[in-house]
Amino acid sequence: MPVSLSRQSSQTLTQQLAERLAERIRMHLLPAGTRLPSVRESARQQGVSPYTVVAAYDLLQAQGLVEARPQRGFFVRDLAQKPLAGQAAPAAAASKAGLPMGIPPGTRINASMLIRGMFVESVDGKPQPGAGVLPAEWLDAGFLAAAMRKVSSGRALRDSLVRYGEPMGDGRLREALSRRLLHLGIAAMPAQIMTTMGATQALDIVSRALLQPGDPVMVEEPGWAVEYARLAAMGMRVLPVPRGPEGPDLAVMQRYCETLAPKLYVSVSVLHNPTGYSLSAASAHEVLQLAQRYGFYVVEDDTYSHIAPEHAPRVTVLDRLQRSIYVGGFAKVLVPNWRIGYLAAPPELVERLLDTKLLSTLSSPTPMEQALALCMEQGQLRRHAERLRRRLSLARTRSVALAQKAGCRFVAEPAGLFGWVDTGVDTEALAQRLLDEGYLIAPGAMFHASRRPSTCMRINFATTQEAGFWRVFGRVIATP
Amino acid sequence: MPVSLSRQSSQTLTQQLAERLAERIRMHLLPAGTRLPSVRESARQQGVSPYTVVAAYDLLQAQGLVEARPQRGFFVRDLAQKPLAGQAAPAAAASKAGLPMGIPPGTRINASMLIRGMFVESVDGKPQPGAGVLPAEWLDAGFLAAAMRKVSSGRALRDSLVRYGEPMGDGRLREALSRRLLHLGIAAMPAQIMTTMGATQALDIVSRALLQPGDPVMVEEPGWAVEYARLAAMGMRVLPVPRGPEGPDLAVMQRYCETLAPKLYVSVSVLHNPTGYSLSAASAHEVLQLAQRYGFYVVEDDTYSHIAPEHAPRVTVLDRLQRSIYVGGFAKVLVPNWRIGYLAAPPELVERLLDTKLLSTLSSPTPMEQALALCMEQGQLRRHAERLRRRLSLARTRSVALAQKAGCRFVAEPAGLFGWVDTGVDTEALAQRLLDEGYLIAPGAMFHASRRPSTCMRINFATTQEAGFWRVFGRVIATP
Repeated sequence: MPVSLSRQSSQTLTQQLAERLAERIRMHLLPAGTRLPSVRESARQQGVSPYTVVAAYDLLQAQGLVEARPQRGFFVRDLAQKPLAGQAAPAAAASKAGLPMGIPPGTRINASMLIRGMFVESVDGKPQPGAGVLPAEWLDAGFLAAAMRKVSSGRALRDSLVRYGEPMGDGRLREALSRRLLHLGIAAMPAQIMTTMGATQALDIVSRALLQPGDPVMVEEPGWAVEYARLAAMGMRVLPVPRGPEGPDLAVMQRYCETLAPKLYVSVSVLHNPTGYSLSAASAHEVLQLAQRYGFYVVEDDTYSHIAPEHAPRVTVLDRLQRSIYVGGFAKVLVPNWRIGYLAAPPELVERLLDTKLLSTLSSPTPMEQALALCMEQGQLRRHAERLRRRLSLARTRSVALAQKAGCRFVAEPAGLFGWVDTGVDTEALAQRLLDEGYLIAPGAMFHASRRPSTCMRINFATTQEAGFWRVFGRVIATP
Repeated sequence: MPVSLSRQSSQTLTQQLAERLAERIRMHLLPAGTRLPSVRESARQQGVSPYTVVAAYDLLQAQGLVEARPQRGFFVRDLAQKPLAGQAAPAAAASKAGLPMGIPPGTRINASMLIRGMFVESVDGKPQPGAGVLPAEWLDAGFLAAAMRKVSSGRALRDSLVRYGEPMGDGRLREALSRRLLHLGIAAMPAQIMTTMGATQALDIVSRALLQPGDPVMVEEPGWAVEYARLAAMGMRVLPVPRGPEGPDLAVMQRYCETLAPKLYVSVSVLHNPTGYSLSAASAHEVLQLAQRYGFYVVEDDTYSHIAPEHAPRVTVLDRLQRSIYVGGFAKVLVPNWRIGYLAAPPELVERLLDTKLLSTLSSPTPMEQALALCMEQGQLRRHAERLRRRLSLARTRSVALAQKAGCRFVAEPAGLFGWVDTGVDTEALAQRLLDEGYLIAPGAMFHASRRPSTCMRINFATTQEAGFWRVFGRVIATP
């Protein structure tokens, strides 16, 4: 477990060692209960003095990340023991209201843990089967750096200073987004479009603006754990709707509507995460009819649109943003940590959503929005996305063959970035064993609102196209 | 009211006109009830066809920003009629709990309106007395653009891609912030420091992570309206504590503690907004004793630290981040819309705060954090801040003289960016009349949690050092 320390850094070796270890603990690369190497062993591994190691372990202990057990050494603490913010209240509220269905809002979900798959792209240089984004070198778009340099030139930067007055987001980017949406079949004026810090903030803003604690919200299952965690942390009542190849289970939605009056339905319509399913037009039509009849809004999270086939049916296309809100982002096609996302909403909701953005982050940073606008205007983003789709398609073919050869069954027709495969064994236990081999997988339980055990896992087609992982997978799965 | 339209834009003239007008309405530069110019008049002003104007007015109507009154024309709608998100629930919760003191959580506060002073830096080229930031040309730091270009070079950008794994924020920036805090007398390890989208998001994250709807929170009065609005929107119970020259009114705090068990005290200790007061060491000590005895946390919002005298007493200095959280930002010293802020917290709170950041925006953008780190490392930011302080000091001397000559009385000793002056007349009515003359002022009611009428206003020393505004002010105030 050597971590790279530098004597050139402005940080002391102690600080560096503590920080690297803290990062690994937070990412659950060092799971709870792991014993840290002995001081002597660690000093040898890192090439530092034992004093440096002792000081680093002390720092970690002060941060509550490890605990000292007398005579035994230092052990990684169970971070999941710390409840997520705001959970106590919702649990109390739910029990008061006597709610029987869905997830108990107090369910312990550790957001850091859930999101590790998105942040950890490689461990020790090995591509990670559970990663939530494309590999960095796929996304390494030179045009973005050029655009960034252009908008950082003196004159342009000065303009972006003076143009502090756009709480809705950079006007030029919103125009480009309006054209992009039109291309997808959604007519949204720039005045209906608001930029956000990634699709994540867009979803967060919608929940904060439209919901009150205790409100019932329909979400897809399997589905994206961060959405479950956010709604639970906000004290919402999460109503899981089974997601099939054509769309949500409409009978279940109907029952929820009749009995619980949900306020919102959050859906990844196209290239659903984790299955890869895409909504049919007929299903979109029925969802909208329910929305109109029972008065809920549909939030369409279109995170994967850049790697999706064009002109896929969408709720927001049929609905013309009457009872639906479109959420988009660029994390799957460009540098994910630039955090540029957006939403397009019915005109009457715009002011309310803008208020929520203002209270949450005031505005969003202009320079990167301008750089992105430039890339969109010049068609670079479109061409880059086309290249990604072709490359992903080749990787998918290879990954599918390898996965099937390793005994995995595809639950859903392979499409997009992720495959949803049945391994035949409990994937949470499998995840723990593969972690020991240096591989992070995304176990199925992570995609269930109740976190119930699952034999499925989500694989990233871009990072599972090499035989290396599947050899280890085959060996681990064959060993009881 | 001509707005600048361009035939070179990719937007139609209709869209451009509608957007410009929408922006002015949202900023309350066209207040509710204002009649838009007739179609013919507007077409003449803008040099476009009447058809273009009709279409633009229709768009504004569709967005709910204006309403058509038959035979009379188009009028700006009262946006404040739309309640802030999440207010209905808190109001209900409060009435259930029978809470008598503080602000009724349902109080109507329009965030867009409150924040206009921060976003509107000039109207028709005139500097705005109510502005919340320094003028753009003061902040126009060439070194920042250079740093931005540097981190946008191919190699550095690639690194920032690969380094997607720092949910706490760019490591180098957190090291620089740790050194900055040490300089202020606060020992905070990088592992205790988390970057955020401006100080605003830091305050938002703290509230979300530590509070549950209905929790009582102590805030300063007068104080910053966005904080009131956020807490109200989240359903918190806002307990105003009068702020004096030395610090908060400790007797009032004591009573709140004895009867209501507040969870948090949010304070701008140094160069308090709007008064400019700075906390005394003795007062900081007493606040901390209360915090320890009654078990609440203190959030120290140090937004103005870069224009403050160095080594001012702070709660977090005395407390060593035990029961206190430090919040900082760069909006008052650098490009405000870059949205870089941070917090430093007790180690045991870090995981919880990080979870909340992840659910809210996942991470924060790396390139600008890296550019800022560079500027801090090279001392450019420190020197820039010194220059700003000198320039502001000269402006303050001029503004104070002009304000006093115009009959204003300084309630607080002039210091920092803002002056808190008593005009002798109701400043909300005054604001309306000065708006007709093209000047936005920040009326005192905006800084009171109850929005009660006030004869005070907050002036920005950088934008009130010219005689022009004060002449108009004198004329308006002399006319009944």
